[in-house]
Amino acid sequence: MFDETDQLSVNALRALSIDMIERAGSGHPGLPLDAAPMAYVLYSRHLRVDPQAPNWTNRDRFVLSAGHGSALLYSLLHLSGFPTSMADLQQFRQLHSMTPGHPEHGLVAGVDATTGPLGQGLGMAVGMAMAETHLAAQFNTPQQQVIDHFTYVICGDGDLMEGISHEAASLAGNLKLNKLIVLYDSNDVSLDGATDRTFSDDAQQRFTSYGWDYQKVSDGNDLAAIDTAITAAKAATDAPSIIEIKTTIGFGAPKQGTHLVHGAPLGQSDLAVTKRNLGWQAEPFTVPAAVKQRFQKQVQQRGQSAHQQWQTLLTAYAQAQPALAEQLQQALTQKLPANWQADLPQYQMGTSEAGRTTSQKMIQALAAKVPSLWGGAADLASSNKTDIAASSSFSATARQERNLNFGVREFAEAAAMNGIALHGGTHVFGGTFFVFSDYMRGAIRLAALQHLPVTYIFTHDSLAVGEDGPTHEPVEQLMSLRAMPGISVIRPADPNEAVAAWRLAMTTNDRPTVLVLTRQELAVLQGSLQQPNGVSRGGYVISPQQHSQAEGILMASGSEVALAIKAQQQLRKFGHDVVVVSMPCFDRFMQQSAAYREQVLPQQIRRRVSIELGVTLGWERFVGLDGLSLGVDTFGASGPAAEVLAEYGFTTAALVAAYQKLW
Amino acid sequence: MFDETDQLSVNALRALSIDMIERAGSGHPGLPLDAAPMAYVLYSRHLRVDPQAPNWTNRDRFVLSAGHGSALLYSLLHLSGFPTSMADLQQFRQLHSMTPGHPEHGLVAGVDATTGPLGQGLGMAVGMAMAETHLAAQFNTPQQQVIDHFTYVICGDGDLMEGISHEAASLAGNLKLNKLIVLYDSNDVSLDGATDRTFSDDAQQRFTSYGWDYQKVSDGNDLAAIDTAITAAKAATDAPSIIEIKTTIGFGAPKQGTHLVHGAPLGQSDLAVTKRNLGWQAEPFTVPAAVKQRFQKQVQQRGQSAHQQWQTLLTAYAQAQPALAEQLQQALTQKLPANWQADLPQYQMGTSEAGRTTSQKMIQALAAKVPSLWGGAADLASSNKTDIAASSSFSATARQERNLNFGVREFAEAAAMNGIALHGGTHVFGGTFFVFSDYMRGAIRLAALQHLPVTYIFTHDSLAVGEDGPTHEPVEQLMSLRAMPGISVIRPADPNEAVAAWRLAMTTNDRPTVLVLTRQELAVLQGSLQQPNGVSRGGYVISPQQHSQAEGILMASGSEVALAIKAQQQLRKFGHDVVVVSMPCFDRFMQQSAAYREQVLPQQIRRRVSIELGVTLGWERFVGLDGLSLGVDTFGASGPAAEVLAEYGFTTAALVAAYQKLW
Repeated sequence: MFDETDQLSVNALRALSIDMIERAGSGHPGLPLDAAPMAYVLYSRHLRVDPQAPNWTNRDRFVLSAGHGSALLYSLLHLSGFPTSMADLQQFRQLHSMTPGHPEHGLVAGVDATTGPLGQGLGMAVGMAMAETHLAAQFNTPQQQVIDHFTYVICGDGDLMEGISHEAASLAGNLKLNKLIVLYDSNDVSLDGATDRTFSDDAQQRFTSYGWDYQKVSDGNDLAAIDTAITAAKAATDAPSIIEIKTTIGFGAPKQGTHLVHGAPLGQSDLAVTKRNLGWQAEPFTVPAAVKQRFQKQVQQRGQSAHQQWQTLLTAYAQAQPALAEQLQQALTQKLPANWQADLPQYQMGTSEAGRTTSQKMIQALAAKVPSLWGGAADLASSNKTDIAASSSFSATARQERNLNFGVREFAEAAAMNGIALHGGTHVFGGTFFVFSDYMRGAIRLAALQHLPVTYIFTHDSLAVGEDGPTHEPVEQLMSLRAMPGISVIRPADPNEAVAAWRLAMTTNDRPTVLVLTRQELAVLQGSLQQPNGVSRGGYVISPQQHSQAEGILMASGSEVALAIKAQQQLRKFGHDVVVVSMPCFDRFMQQSAAYREQVLPQQIRRRVSIELGVTLGWERFVGLDGLSLGVDTFGASGPAAEVLAEYGFTTAALVAAYQKLW
Repeated sequence: MFDETDQLSVNALRALSIDMIERAGSGHPGLPLDAAPMAYVLYSRHLRVDPQAPNWTNRDRFVLSAGHGSALLYSLLHLSGFPTSMADLQQFRQLHSMTPGHPEHGLVAGVDATTGPLGQGLGMAVGMAMAETHLAAQFNTPQQQVIDHFTYVICGDGDLMEGISHEAASLAGNLKLNKLIVLYDSNDVSLDGATDRTFSDDAQQRFTSYGWDYQKVSDGNDLAAIDTAITAAKAATDAPSIIEIKTTIGFGAPKQGTHLVHGAPLGQSDLAVTKRNLGWQAEPFTVPAAVKQRFQKQVQQRGQSAHQQWQTLLTAYAQAQPALAEQLQQALTQKLPANWQADLPQYQMGTSEAGRTTSQKMIQALAAKVPSLWGGAADLASSNKTDIAASSSFSATARQERNLNFGVREFAEAAAMNGIALHGGTHVFGGTFFVFSDYMRGAIRLAALQHLPVTYIFTHDSLAVGEDGPTHEPVEQLMSLRAMPGISVIRPADPNEAVAAWRLAMTTNDRPTVLVLTRQELAVLQGSLQQPNGVSRGGYVISPQQHSQAEGILMASGSEVALAIKAQQQLRKFGHDVVVVSMPCFDRFMQQSAAYREQVLPQQIRRRVSIELGVTLGWERFVGLDGLSLGVDTFGASGPAAEVLAEYGFTTAALVAAYQKLW
C-alpha cells in the first residue's frame, strides 16, 4: 500500500526541513524528523485540500499545534503545490519571508492557524470542528452535504501538558466532535529533556475520560499503521479521536531520542550523518522527481478533484436551496444582511440600563436578523447575559443551536472562538467576567495576531462588582488590554454607547473587539444621544464647555463619564468652565486625524483630569505631565458597590475637589 | 462514630453560612449547604491546626479552591475558634470586614490561600505540598519529623474544568505528592446549570491517568464514609489523592440540586424552609452550646495538643541538630544568611553578558549561600538559564533537590510558586519566555494580591528574540505587567543592573518581583557601575548632560538604554545636550520622593523621548504631551534579531533623527 516513493517522500520532508533549519541557523529539527511520516500519510492519503485554492470553504483543516515544527509544514506546503516555493524554503526565518519561524495564518497560504504558543492549536481546532458541525447542521440537506470536512491536528507532548489541552479536549468530548482527529506525536522528549521527568500522564486513560476515541501506533515510521488509524478515526461517529503515535524525536539524527535535537540546527556534520542514515542522496533543497509526482498526484490532484466535485455539488445546492445557498454565501463572506440594524434598541433620556443588559438586547436584535451570529460564555451566560433567547444550547445532539456553553474554560473558549473565526461562516462572540480575561490573554493575543473578528463580552467591568471583592474586581485588565496591539477595546458610557460599540464589533472585520460592560445601571447621556458616531471615533466631546474655550478637560470612559459630567456642572458653580470628553476606545481615537484629536483635546489646554475605575498608567497619553489621573492603582475591596466606589474616591465631590486643588 | 452533635455541627455550618449570605444580600449558598459535611469531617477529625496560632509552621494546610464558598470557610473558622467572630460573620461581604466575599489570605487568619479565580486553589495546594516535602527532606531526621503535614483542598466542578487543574494535577501525580488530598465536591451543577451540558469527564479515569489515587463517596452526607476515605487517603504513600464526593448543591433548600441555589441568597422564605428541612431551630447567627463544645474539643483542643507536641519536638530537634534548626528558623522567617551577598558577580567596563546569563550566575552565587533558594522553569530551564548547577531535579525520588521542572505548564508553575511562598520556608523563583507570562497572568495577580515574594525570571524579553517571530516576541507584556498593582517589574539595562535587580528580588518580602531579561548580550554601562543603587530607585540618571541643565531627556529601559547613550553622544555633535535616564522599574520610581523624581526628570524640561522595545502606552507618564515615545505598537516579525530591530527603528540613527525632527 505504501511503496518506496512514499518512503522517499517522507525523507524529502525530513531533508528539506533540516536543510531549512541549517540554512536559517535556527529552528526545531526534532519534530520534522519524527513527525514526517504521520504528516505525509495525512497529506497524501487523507487531507482534502486544493493547493491552488488554499481557502476553499469545505477543505479539511489542518493545525500544526506544535508550531515550532514549522519547517515540516512549509515542506509539506511546498511539495503539495501550495504557493510556498523552494526559494521561500531557503528564506526560512528571514525577515519578510513567507516562511516565518512559527506558522502564520494569513501570511502563508495553507496555514490554517497561527501556532507556536503551545496548546492553543488544539483549542483552535476544537473551534474549527464546532464551526463545521454547526454550519453542516444549518446548511446541509440529505441530498447535499455542502459542509462536510475533517479537522486534523498534530500536537506534541508540550501541547498536552498545557492546561488548555484539558479544557479543549474536555469540551470536544462533551460535544462529541467526531470529525476532529488529533495525531499525537508522542516522542517523550521536550525542550529540557525526557518528559517523564515532569509528565507521566496515561494518554489513553486521560482522553478516554473525556469521551474520546483513542488509538495507538507503536511505530511512528509505520506508514500503513498510521493510515489505518486515521481511517478508523474518520469512521468514528460519536467521539473525537486521538491517535498516539510513538516516535523518536529527531529520527535519523545522531542525537535522536534526546532533547539535544529539539530546538537547534543539527550542525553540518550531524546533518550529513542524518541524511546518510535516512539514505537521502539529493542535493540540499532538491527532491527527486518521483517525490514531486507523488505529491502532485496524491495531494494536488486528489484535492482538486474533491474541490471540483464540491463545486458541482454547490451548484446543485444553489438550485435546490436558493435561500439557503444565498445565506451560506453571505455567511462565508462575513456579509451582514441588509436589514441587520433594523431593530436595534434605542434609548432616550431618562432611561437607565446596565451595559450587560444593553448587550443582551443587542444580541437578541442582532440574532434575529443575522443567522450567522452565535456565541456564549464560560459558564457565566446568566451573568454576562449572552444567551440568544430564541435559540437553545449548541450540543452533541443540537448542532444547529446558537448558544455556546464553554464551561468554566475561559482559555479554551477564546481559543475555540479563534478557531470558529478561522473556519469562517459565522460571527462569534464569547463572554466572561472582565477580570478573568486574564485567563484567556494568550488566545486574545492570537486573535489579534491573526486579525480575527471575534467579539468578547466582558462584563462586571470594575470595582462596582462590589461584594465579590478584589479577586473579582478588574483593575489593571482595561489598560493591559489597551496595551495589546491589533485589538479594539471599547468601554461604553451609557446604553447608546453600548449599542454603538456592538455595532462596531459587528462591522469590524480585521481585529477582535473587546466590549467592556458594566453590571450596574448606566443612565442615558444627552451627548451620546446626540452624537451616534462618537464611539466610532474613540473619543469625543460628550458635554461641551459653556464658553468658546474650555479652561480644562475632564475625560473618562464607561461608568465614570456620568461622574465627569456631574463634576462639570459642579465646577461651573466655582467658575471653572470645563469640557467633558468621553473616551470609550483609545485605539480608535489614536486612529483619528491629528486635526480631530486636536479638536477634542486642544494642545494648549493643560488642565486635564482623567477619571476611570482602573489603573491610571496609560491615561497620561491624554493627560500629560501637568494633569491628573484619578483611578485605582491598588486592588479593590469587598463591600457593597456604592461603598467601595466612595472608598476609592469615585464621587463627584472627590473629582471636583481634585480639580480645584490643582487649579 | 459520628453522633447527633456531629450532625448538628454540620447543620450549624450550613445555617450560619446561609444566614451570612442572606444578611449580606449576596453570596453563594450552594456549596456551603452541600459541602458542609466534608468540611466538618475534615476540620473535626483530620485537619491539624491551632486556631490560636493560625500560622503554626507545621499545621495542615487547607485551601478552599472553590472560593465562592467562603461563607462555609468563615463559619468553620468561627466555630473552630479562629479569630473570626460572630460579629465578623454578620459583616460578611461588608467593606473593611474580616469576612470578604472570597477568602483573602493575610486578612483573615486561618485562610491559607486567597481563592476565587477557579482552579488556582488546586494549583497553590500543589505548591504547598511541594514545599512541605522539600522542607521535610531538607530538615527531618529519622528521630524528628519537624515538617510533616498534609495539604487539603476542597474543589468543585468549576475548578476541575479549568485548564490549570490539569497542569497542577498532572504535575502532582508525576511528583507523587502523597500528602496532597483533594475533596472534590461533585455536585454536577455550575453557575449556568447542570454540568453535563458541558462537562462529562470521568474523574476517576482522569485522575488515574495522572497517577492519583481515586476514591468515591456516593453520599456527600455520609460523615463516616467521608472520614474513612480521608483516612485511607492519608495512608497513601506514593500518590496524591482525590476523593470524589457526590453531593446535592444547595442541600436542604427548596431548589436544591439546581443552579438556582448556586450564587444568590436563598431569600427569607426559602431560607426558612431550608432550616426546617435541616431540622435547624436556633435563631439566626446562634449555635447550640453542644456544637461549640464539639468544635472546641475536636478542632481546637486536638490542634493545640498537636501544636504543643510539635513544640516539644522542635526543642529536642534544636538540641540534636542545632545547625539545621538554625537554618530552619532562618528559612521560616525568610531571613537571608549574613553572607548571602558575598560572592555575587561583578562586572567592569568592557564586559558584555546576556541578562539571562547574569541571572544564571546570580542564581549560582545565591544558591551557594542561601539554602532556601530553589526554583525552575516551565520546560525552558536551558533557555531561561534557571538551573542551580550544584543541585539536581526535585522529583518524587529526590525531594531535597532544588531544581523545579514544572513541565510546559506556565499557569500551574506560577500557582505552585504562590503555594510554595504561602507555605513558607523557601525563596522560590520560576522562569519562562516573557511572552508566555500571558499564560500565568491569573496567578501573577494572585501573587500580588497576597503579597507573595516570588521571583519570575522572564527571558527573551523583546523583538530581539528574532527568528521565532511574533508569537514569541513580547511587545505588550512589559507595560501590561507594569499596569498590575502590587508587583515590581524590573528590566535591567546591563549586567550590573541585572545583579541589582536580583538583589532587590531577594530582599523584597511583600510583593512579587518580575525580572525581564534579555537573551542577547548587554554591555556594561559606566553609569550603572558608578551608581549601584540606581535600580533600587526605579529610575536614575545613567549618563548626565554636559552642561548644568539638559536641553532634553532620553529615557529607556533594558537593552535600549545603551542605544539612548549612543544617541546622546551623537546628539552632542549636533549641539543637543541631553541627559539619559535609565528607568528599569516604573513602580520603584513612582515610590521615590517627589524631590528625587524632579531631580531625575525636571518638570521644566519637556523635550523628552522614551525608547523601549515594547508598546509606548504608559511611557507618556514620563514623556508627557510634548515628548515622543519610540516603541513597538504592532506585533513583531520573524527574522535575524539585528534585522528585526532595524526594521522597527531601533537604531541610534533613528533615535537621533526622531529627536532632531522635533527639536
